[in-house]
Amino acid sequence: MEPNLYDRNCGSRQVLDRIGDRWSVLVVLALADGVKRYGELAQRVDGVSQKMLTQTLRGLERDGLVTRSVHAEVPPRVDYALTGLGRSLLDLLSGLRTWATTHLPEVEAARARYDAR
Amino acid sequence: MEPNLYDRNCGSRQVLDRIGDRWSVLVVLALADGVKRYGELAQRVDGVSQKMLTQTLRGLERDGLVTRSVHAEVPPRVDYALTGLGRSLLDLLSGLRTWATTHLPEVEAARARYDAR
Repeated sequence: MEPNLYDRNCGSRQVLDRIGDRWSVLVVLALADGVKRYGELAQRVDGVSQKMLTQTLRGLERDGLVTRSVHAEVPPRVDYALTGLGRSLLDLLSGLRTWATTHLPEVEAARARYDAR
Repeated sequence: MEPNLYDRNCGSRQVLDRIGDRWSVLVVLALADGVKRYGELAQRVDGVSQKMLTQTLRGLERDGLVTRSVHAEVPPRVDYALTGLGRSLLDLLSGLRTWATTHLPEVEAARARYDAR
């Protein structure tokens, strides 16, 4: 059977639900330049709640995009890093970032027109 | 000032919030092959509620990615189509679709490992 992205029961749709999620996109991009601690991610991704960051990281780990390593220090240090599978997403997500910054003026102009109607 | 995707007050982040949204991704992809009516979109994008589809279409229209045309028929016909700006997203979103279908087996294997821990 062909994967059908539009079918909510298809696995490909469930994968899209992960990668088409703003917090997942921002966390994966934030990990592009290397391992980060939980607190560093929380600081980097402005506006994410602790609950949402924890949930996002757990989802990314479950989907095999991110690894979580606990180091026996006092206090314990918890690191997050991209897996190979996570890295394979970087080009696409950087593309989204580039699109968002390049077309920002057009989007803002469209919003202003819409709101003025 | 450089656009900062991580800053919730930056426009580029607001643009990402739109394009990094599962329903927006699915609606834009569903419009790739041409104009569609509301009911066709509702049928195509499995699992979307009427409220969420209306809200998604309004957001896409406001951001200049989709046009909405009302035709004076009985009953009135309402069509949605991609704008040039919307079309400029298609390659990226098709890339996400391809990634989701290509890497589905790896993601599913990772989920099974995670859930078995």
